[in-house]
Amino acid sequence: MMSNSNNFNRRKFLKSSAMVGALLGVGNVNALSPDAIQQTVANISTPRKSQNKSVIGLKVAPIEQVRVAFIGVGNRGTGHVKLVEALGKKAKIIAISDIRDKYAQNSIDYLKSKGVKKVAKYSATKDSWKEMLQRDDIDLVIISTPWENHVEMSVYAMQQGKHVALEVPAAFTVEDCWKLVDTAEATQRNCMMLENVCYGDEELAILQMVDQGIFGTLTHGEAAYIHDLKELMFSKTGYYNQWRLRHHIKYDGNLYPTHGLGPVAQYMGIARGDRFGHLVSMSSLEANLTEYAKTVEKDNEFYQQDKFAHGDMNSTLIQTAKGRSILLQHDVATYRPYSRINAIAGTKGYHEGYPSRLSFAGKGHGWLTAEEHQEYFTKYKHPIWDSLKDEIAKNGGHGGMDFVMMYRLVDCLNKGLPLDMDVYDGADWSVITPLSQISIQMGNTPVKFPDFTRGRWQEERKLGIMQTL
Amino acid sequence: MMSNSNNFNRRKFLKSSAMVGALLGVGNVNALSPDAIQQTVANISTPRKSQNKSVIGLKVAPIEQVRVAFIGVGNRGTGHVKLVEALGKKAKIIAISDIRDKYAQNSIDYLKSKGVKKVAKYSATKDSWKEMLQRDDIDLVIISTPWENHVEMSVYAMQQGKHVALEVPAAFTVEDCWKLVDTAEATQRNCMMLENVCYGDEELAILQMVDQGIFGTLTHGEAAYIHDLKELMFSKTGYYNQWRLRHHIKYDGNLYPTHGLGPVAQYMGIARGDRFGHLVSMSSLEANLTEYAKTVEKDNEFYQQDKFAHGDMNSTLIQTAKGRSILLQHDVATYRPYSRINAIAGTKGYHEGYPSRLSFAGKGHGWLTAEEHQEYFTKYKHPIWDSLKDEIAKNGGHGGMDFVMMYRLVDCLNKGLPLDMDVYDGADWSVITPLSQISIQMGNTPVKFPDFTRGRWQEERKLGIMQTL
Repeated sequence: MMSNSNNFNRRKFLKSSAMVGALLGVGNVNALSPDAIQQTVANISTPRKSQNKSVIGLKVAPIEQVRVAFIGVGNRGTGHVKLVEALGKKAKIIAISDIRDKYAQNSIDYLKSKGVKKVAKYSATKDSWKEMLQRDDIDLVIISTPWENHVEMSVYAMQQGKHVALEVPAAFTVEDCWKLVDTAEATQRNCMMLENVCYGDEELAILQMVDQGIFGTLTHGEAAYIHDLKELMFSKTGYYNQWRLRHHIKYDGNLYPTHGLGPVAQYMGIARGDRFGHLVSMSSLEANLTEYAKTVEKDNEFYQQDKFAHGDMNSTLIQTAKGRSILLQHDVATYRPYSRINAIAGTKGYHEGYPSRLSFAGKGHGWLTAEEHQEYFTKYKHPIWDSLKDEIAKNGGHGGMDFVMMYRLVDCLNKGLPLDMDVYDGADWSVITPLSQISIQMGNTPVKFPDFTRGRWQEERKLGIMQTL
Repeated sequence: MMSNSNNFNRRKFLKSSAMVGALLGVGNVNALSPDAIQQTVANISTPRKSQNKSVIGLKVAPIEQVRVAFIGVGNRGTGHVKLVEALGKKAKIIAISDIRDKYAQNSIDYLKSKGVKKVAKYSATKDSWKEMLQRDDIDLVIISTPWENHVEMSVYAMQQGKHVALEVPAAFTVEDCWKLVDTAEATQRNCMMLENVCYGDEELAILQMVDQGIFGTLTHGEAAYIHDLKELMFSKTGYYNQWRLRHHIKYDGNLYPTHGLGPVAQYMGIARGDRFGHLVSMSSLEANLTEYAKTVEKDNEFYQQDKFAHGDMNSTLIQTAKGRSILLQHDVATYRPYSRINAIAGTKGYHEGYPSRLSFAGKGHGWLTAEEHQEYFTKYKHPIWDSLKDEIAKNGGHGGMDFVMMYRLVDCLNKGLPLDMDVYDGADWSVITPLSQISIQMGNTPVKFPDFTRGRWQEERKLGIMQTL
């Protein structure tokens, strides 16, 4: 009588053993026994030593004008070009690379229209970006390519002595997360994942509230990326070569964890006094993409596709070393309005987003009124949102968070300050993807996190943006 | 470097092995090895045979006027007395038992004021309820006592030939869930858990929408009991002998799963074509009750208590045989406004409560407007909420759901129809408590559900309330 659910699990397990191997970087594990896979999983959490110095708090000499190059100027990179241009003399755009000449040219034309000339273009071949990175007049490379290119490009850039800012997620295998960490340490270069949501007005205000103790002892947080992307993923002119949809064919788990998780990790001081200990992950069945695939054009490669590995809703529970819990969700397939949840609970209060609501001890059992809510968000507004008010209004980017992020990145390099987010943050937040996949493939078992900081997460440290402006 | 989170887990495991034994009903397992515990856990899901007939679809002869007795007329039972009285000639109140004479007398006085006389009182001793159940003029017993008394009283009542309606949760150990099922089958009596939320206006409308396919293929649901009960639990005059707070000292996990879960289980047809397959559960650290305990009166037994086993937020993920996922939360300690979440996702639409919101395919990427939302809830309003409109307005009970529940319970007995919810529903929804506890004690590992229906969950059946009125 248990056969149905047993079959469901065994099917999940059998079809996925090859995937476990890929995720762990152990080659072909089709032949591995469940015990061997368990052993390999155990290795994830084995501490790794390094010959090199940690890049926690990495300071490099001030760079009066940061010389910037871009790889990938499609949906996302185009916006970054505009933001860097808007920073004026703080940065200088040197070169742009894209596998599609037209896109590279569009950005160069845009810059010309703004009076920025002599920007070099690298789009002749698939490897033109490498040629660009061999130049010696670039300080910072901004990478906005499909997920599968992030690590190769970031590693190569650091090896060429460049600082790296790369799009989310940084990586989607455990080994690739380590590669970023190891390379940053070996080269002593910055490798910051561009988690823009950490610079949101709401998120920075909550971070201020947490910092000033008004939520009390933190116990639980919730985060998500709930965004109906069906139309964009199936579109032949959306993501380059429909790359994002291909991930849904291959992988289950949380494919895109960082937008929701980044801010909650910062509220909790992950890698700065606490750390992710282990997670368990569960996906629902897949149904939405299969139904949608019946409705697209017949010449679409994914017309009538019904072999999606990725369940519609992925829910992951994370326990931190301090015993806090985090619920993290991923759903880009359901007709459900956008949400990152953005919830944080403590012993004195609670916040939940979509829409933003607050409740506090001694303020009744309901939500604060709109007026009281406004008072809190005015009082705890992060000063950078005031000081950059005019530029934010002019340049925006997801309501302004993109501009604030780019400003902080370049400003810290200008001033020789450590960046707000380091390679350990990028690895911690991105490694959810392979760990959630493994948890599901093992039948929703707990999987421990690697400790990318090699023990230094135990140091209570303030975020850069909470110290300096 | 992993030591902190390892210690956290090992601490959880060590302090809890005795508890695992208690939950599984295997006596003292202090001496059991982890392997032995794993084995015991495996036994949970071993199919059990019965010599007796299933009570699925149980019909008994129509009872023109249902003769009712009550055990427990405190916070909750008092309301049930009023509702049964309000049913007029459909039912007749025979007797009332409470361990506190004053409470029994209060209900009897209330009934007298309504012209209901000759109601017998059983409050002389701790076992007076047994004496009451030996009467031969009682058809139905309504049990609203502390959780720890539910099973003993229900089993004894069925053995005396009475039908049972008991408060939530039905039971909180695996063995006790089986006891209810086995006794119902052996005696062929009804044993309905009084999950009032299943009769809510919003919940029944969504059930109608699901039934008519407007959510499409269901993939994921969310449910919760988020209700700040600190004040009531610590109060010396709230729960009898502060019984509810004592559970927080002893047990971790989801202590009160059914209000949120019941409706979602009904949307998904649990035990009527689908079933809960397994769960994983995680609790946050405990902090809120400890902080609150510092603020209560010094002569309160729980003043400065800081040994609460129960984490503030419990999150449980359930996978069904059909591959659907359910997120279920429990938090009665945080300053967070009330919510049961009440979310259901399919391939055509999505609902989320608190406040109720709908989104549908082809209706844009946001929530329906208030006007559109109203149209749906008017169109799909369950007919019973129209037909009982006046009585609901008069008698209420959590906005009317209590009255509808009591009406249906008695009306089905009047007409000789199967009850809307049976002993298998009560067991399925309540067994979350011990399974979540075990999952946490084993380090957040998956735990399979027992199959209380002994295989009959595979039969697609409509709920009574969706067939007959």
